[in-house]
Amino acid sequence: MNSRETILNLLRDGETVSGGELSRRLGLSRSAVWKAVSALRQDGYDIDAAPGRGYRLRAAPDILTEPEVRRALGPVRLIGSTIVCVDETASTNLDCKRLAARGGANGTVVIANSQTAGRGRMNRQFQSPKDKGIYMSVLLYPDLPPERLLPLTVLAGVCVCSAVERVCGTRPGLKWPNDPVLNGKKLCGILTELSMEGESGRVAYVVPGIGINVAQTPGDFSPEVAEMATSLSWELKRDISRPRLAAALIEELDRAYDALCRGDLAEYLDACRRDCVNIGKRVQLISPDGRREEADAVGLDEAFGLTVRDASGAERVIRAGEVSVRGLYGYIE
Amino acid sequence: MNSRETILNLLRDGETVSGGELSRRLGLSRSAVWKAVSALRQDGYDIDAAPGRGYRLRAAPDILTEPEVRRALGPVRLIGSTIVCVDETASTNLDCKRLAARGGANGTVVIANSQTAGRGRMNRQFQSPKDKGIYMSVLLYPDLPPERLLPLTVLAGVCVCSAVERVCGTRPGLKWPNDPVLNGKKLCGILTELSMEGESGRVAYVVPGIGINVAQTPGDFSPEVAEMATSLSWELKRDISRPRLAAALIEELDRAYDALCRGDLAEYLDACRRDCVNIGKRVQLISPDGRREEADAVGLDEAFGLTVRDASGAERVIRAGEVSVRGLYGYIE
Repeated sequence: MNSRETILNLLRDGETVSGGELSRRLGLSRSAVWKAVSALRQDGYDIDAAPGRGYRLRAAPDILTEPEVRRALGPVRLIGSTIVCVDETASTNLDCKRLAARGGANGTVVIANSQTAGRGRMNRQFQSPKDKGIYMSVLLYPDLPPERLLPLTVLAGVCVCSAVERVCGTRPGLKWPNDPVLNGKKLCGILTELSMEGESGRVAYVVPGIGINVAQTPGDFSPEVAEMATSLSWELKRDISRPRLAAALIEELDRAYDALCRGDLAEYLDACRRDCVNIGKRVQLISPDGRREEADAVGLDEAFGLTVRDASGAERVIRAGEVSVRGLYGYIE
Repeated sequence: MNSRETILNLLRDGETVSGGELSRRLGLSRSAVWKAVSALRQDGYDIDAAPGRGYRLRAAPDILTEPEVRRALGPVRLIGSTIVCVDETASTNLDCKRLAARGGANGTVVIANSQTAGRGRMNRQFQSPKDKGIYMSVLLYPDLPPERLLPLTVLAGVCVCSAVERVCGTRPGLKWPNDPVLNGKKLCGILTELSMEGESGRVAYVVPGIGINVAQTPGDFSPEVAEMATSLSWELKRDISRPRLAAALIEELDRAYDALCRGDLAEYLDACRRDCVNIGKRVQLISPDGRREEADAVGLDEAFGLTVRDASGAERVIRAGEVSVRGLYGYIE
């Protein structure tokens, strides 16, 4: 822990701590303590310095730094053992791949405050404005065949729902297969990238990447995206702490990945069936070639596939990536 | 084409070209021509300047630059349409992944003169010393399901054998599944990395990475690697042109990838069966848990699997990545 983190820990309880005490606890000169406090202020920490009494932390900023995320984080098995926070990056998924190339630790979490080249499926852009979202990727080296990893993306979607419920008190729905939604709009984008050794099909690593819209206003999105995307703060009409939400998400991902490795997904299948906003509704199925078909969404099968009943009354299961599912008139409805 | 490349093209035929002529053809001042010639000399081009007569190219260096590779390259369909040469990089596979993240062109070839973090399968180090090898990766966006891409690595091995045969006059053997070998030692390492969108299993991109040992002496390898690795120059006892070999490899890869996309691999299966140094020999099969078993290598099946006959006389097929194959006493024999 560096001196800034130590000072933060000592000030966390809201107590006033004298410069002499801080200096003694840190083994640093009074002027070094002063410098560290100044640096914390620059990061947005509101620290009082009352002459003759000492320092007091009035408020911590809503910033995605390792100390702020870690402070909110409970014990984890694997995911979150290492956390790397950066202010800006091209893409946190790419950062994880770069880490993988040099043998980065299993379970490393990379969080950015903004992305300049955030990407979704099919190489679509994922808009990642500064200070507004949580852009997080995890580097994992699973000892599982690729087909066992297919549920990872939907698990990540469930984890986002659970983390939002814990921190915000409202549980989003899940648009099949894995999109957390609130009031009919997307809160989150998820792109899981799986790297395999080509000749054997052995999984080298997998990187789930999650972007949660936390504080965007409609003007932060491009007009096309604004039609189907929203943010937590906008829908809930209040501020949401990004470090707390990031920490809750790390805990949920850690638990879900453990379940995936054990092959025990019953709890997550139940959650998906409860959260899925499509079940019981009429949906449009859109093929990659643009063909559209109406059907009734009936339920989820054991592998998280969507069971639909078509016009002839026949039931079939569709898998993520095969077709897009939309509402009759819009994204969900 | 920049002015240096234009000058090189004008001097290629061995003719002496006056400074005035160069200046006219390039639309540059005499002193700008002089600067470009000086820059070429710094790159290792041996250029004569006879006062009153002009410039003459005496010898081109054995360097992996785009103009040198392109000069040796015939027409290609896809692979090699874009070529990026760098002097040093962490890993050309990683460079291709980075390109993929920003939508780099299909078929882009990245070639490095040295790698600081070259990797093989299972995250093993691949030693990539400066000026000694060809370290090449290709960025491909195949419109194929992942299982159709499994042969790509063995095709790359066959391509290396064909390129070496064309440039050096000697065809290496192929140690199953995909290692080009000469005199019982490895000439080349291949790592194909396949990136999939995790929830659908759609292939986002695939990057075959190929490292050919061209000019290493045994002292260039670590002692453990030197036991089973060698280089073309060392075995053939003469210099080999790296840009010519790189160009031949690009042409072979372009042809092989086209065959893979068409699903017409008969020619490559024939080549593999001819090149495979294990067939007809007794081999050791080494499981991931270290268990060893002797068997006779009998042939290749239609999917490039190795058919072996075990002690009981039963035949079975082993797939790349399932077990390692070694000779009874060493790497091959």
